Amino acid sequence: MSPFTFTLDAECPDTWARAGTIHTPHGTIQTPIFMPVGTQATVKSVSPEELRAVGASIILANTYHLMLRPGSALINSFGGLHSFMHWDGPILTDSGGFQVWSLGHLRKLNEDGVTFKSHLDGSSHSLTPERVMQIEAELGADIILPLDICAPYPCSAEDARAAMERTHRWEERALIAKEHYRPEQSLFGIVQGAFEPELRQQSARIIGNLPFSGFSIGGLSVGEPKAMMWDMLRYVTPELPRNKPRHLLGVGSPEDLVIGVGMGMDMFDCVLPTRVARHGGLFTNAGRVSIKAARFRSETGPVEAGCDCYTCQNYSAAYVHHLARTEEQLYYRLGSIHNIRFMLRLAGQLRDAIIAGTYPDFREAFLTRYIPASEKIREAQREKWKVAKARQQ
Amino acid sequence: MSPFTFTLDAECPDTWARAGTIHTPHGTIQTPIFMPVGTQATVKSVSPEELRAVGASIILANTYHLMLRPGSALINSFGGLHSFMHWDGPILTDSGGFQVWSLGHLRKLNEDGVTFKSHLDGSSHSLTPERVMQIEAELGADIILPLDICAPYPCSAEDARAAMERTHRWEERALIAKEHYRPEQSLFGIVQGAFEPELRQQSARIIGNLPFSGFSIGGLSVGEPKAMMWDMLRYVTPELPRNKPRHLLGVGSPEDLVIGVGMGMDMFDCVLPTRVARHGGLFTNAGRVSIKAARFRSETGPVEAGCDCYTCQNYSAAYVHHLARTEEQLYYRLGSIHNIRFMLRLAGQLRDAIIAGTYPDFREAFLTRYIPASEKIREAQREKWKVAKARQQ
Repeated sequence: MSPFTFTLDAECPDTWARAGTIHTPHGTIQTPIFMPVGTQATVKSVSPEELRAVGASIILANTYHLMLRPGSALINSFGGLHSFMHWDGPILTDSGGFQVWSLGHLRKLNEDGVTFKSHLDGSSHSLTPERVMQIEAELGADIILPLDICAPYPCSAEDARAAMERTHRWEERALIAKEHYRPEQSLFGIVQGAFEPELRQQSARIIGNLPFSGFSIGGLSVGEPKAMMWDMLRYVTPELPRNKPRHLLGVGSPEDLVIGVGMGMDMFDCVLPTRVARHGGLFTNAGRVSIKAARFRSETGPVEAGCDCYTCQNYSAAYVHHLARTEEQLYYRLGSIHNIRFMLRLAGQLRDAIIAGTYPDFREAFLTRYIPASEKIREAQREKWKVAKARQQ
Repeated sequence: MSPFTFTLDAECPDTWARAGTIHTPHGTIQTPIFMPVGTQATVKSVSPEELRAVGASIILANTYHLMLRPGSALINSFGGLHSFMHWDGPILTDSGGFQVWSLGHLRKLNEDGVTFKSHLDGSSHSLTPERVMQIEAELGADIILPLDICAPYPCSAEDARAAMERTHRWEERALIAKEHYRPEQSLFGIVQGAFEPELRQQSARIIGNLPFSGFSIGGLSVGEPKAMMWDMLRYVTPELPRNKPRHLLGVGSPEDLVIGVGMGMDMFDCVLPTRVARHGGLFTNAGRVSIKAARFRSETGPVEAGCDCYTCQNYSAAYVHHLARTEEQLYYRLGSIHNIRFMLRLAGQLRDAIIAGTYPDFREAFLTRYIPASEKIREAQREKWKVAKARQQ
């Protein structure tokens, strides 16, 4: 029997939302779930014990970053990521494809794989579907992803098709290669197809029929309008097998989680909750607030009334404001804990609503009261981050 | 009965070392003790629960920083520092004198007090002995210090005397003013006198005879050679009353703690353990090591074998090395926890040795095996920090 199972606990009759349970060698995950991102084998500023305390049941780590530093062989010699980073719960590693894609001119692509120069020291590296399986075997995550090609936005239909078809060939190679390394790891397939409805449908159908343990939807949230992203899922979800988990890669915000669940997605991951926290953005039921705003200066209540996170249980909003304004390290921790807890509580509420048969009402109520960062603010932030990232490279 | 008491538990027959117990309204402190510094109402990167876990029994906060941001009136409106920062143990606040002194050309001194421009926004502020008592009453620490003048190193005997005499007049004013604000706070006297043995002796005698709850030795560790600092204590300690605690302001390193205890000091505070941790310097029984060094890259053991801190109990040195190299925020926390725990364990070992009558042996064994950062490295670091600080201003 495979150590990986997925069972459906409830399905929404009016939408594609479902509640499920995933068993992995390192523990159980109840879906829908948000997965905090631990890019470099650490969820920025948060300890494993704190992740447990906020209710994290699975985290994600990035193959690209870890293969470069400290190296997957070294992590393997420590018994894998779990023991290296002192997190004994489930881990998902991505394939590095998305990060290599982001390197732009620093990479070269051919049928065999991709070569790229490290953003750290310019050294050359190459990834093939087989090599990625080897690296992820060394990292030892419970769920692993195959090397894929993330088409840019916008992209011609022709390029989108070429990228998708090559991705499919790579995924078949990954399925074979994986058996040579750690067969007990669970390999998810990745659906691509850019923003072409027909390609998305085709990709979901082809990949959905291969013996993957679950499916990640890639190539979305790459700069397109939100509506276009959701539109793509309309073509993808119906083609995927009902009895396997679906992961929306790199998404999202609180509102994305609420909407994505209705589009049939079970798993979400994103650096957003921790990244916006570091910049002062904290989630509340009424929307995202900036804790640095003057109105919090003398606020004796918590960041959010009724919140059960460590931050809100122990500190006034004024103190969190003070730490954020003085750029104290404890702020980054308190802000991250609050936002991750918000995401995980939200995931739990979505699950409860699905099981209770009230998901559509929950969604409507949430989206009515929750004011997200506007598209304009999001755009401006994205640009700022791009510039900051370019500087680091 | 005063809520503040100091009792001597043991005295070393061969040195001036002693073990004592201080009672304060927020708890008991066993001496010798190291006090972690929470400049801006937070010990950088460490939570109050973690401070408790490493054995911290008192922390220090800086009046200068807090009066500027978020302001002592605001902290007072939250019920004082304890509840504002979620630390219910004893707190000591300094007077701001040392920081104002460090501002150099930004300050002006006269008999009444000192005016200075904020390093944050250039706004003008003035401190008098009375105003400092008011601010510290608003901050609400258990132990408070009076405004003093920290003479530079080097300094003419004439200037040293003038600064000392004015400090003495200010301290008498502080004693009177304090009764108007929070008489239940414990005011320590500050001994000055720069590097003039006669002045040091005189200052200790005069201040030692005033009704302070304890004594802080100021004006040391300002750039002079270490030997000169210890030499000054030879003149100070014998003049101070035996039955009150003695605090060596802004000192020190592990070796300073070990030596200072023998010079009759009971309390120590310094940003050094957390600051060097942030730069990769971690304390071990064999001396200070740089966790960023290549030799830790694949070290499966902890930073220090046998260390009982959270970091060493849960993470390999290789993982800590990885976090330090990638500048991950969790590193700063793990490094700080390790170093603070080292200092507090050392303080406890010193106490045990004093009680067991073996302090001189303990000191000799420690100083034989512990290799501190050399005077040269220390000098270079101090210069780097000065430059970094100047840039911030």
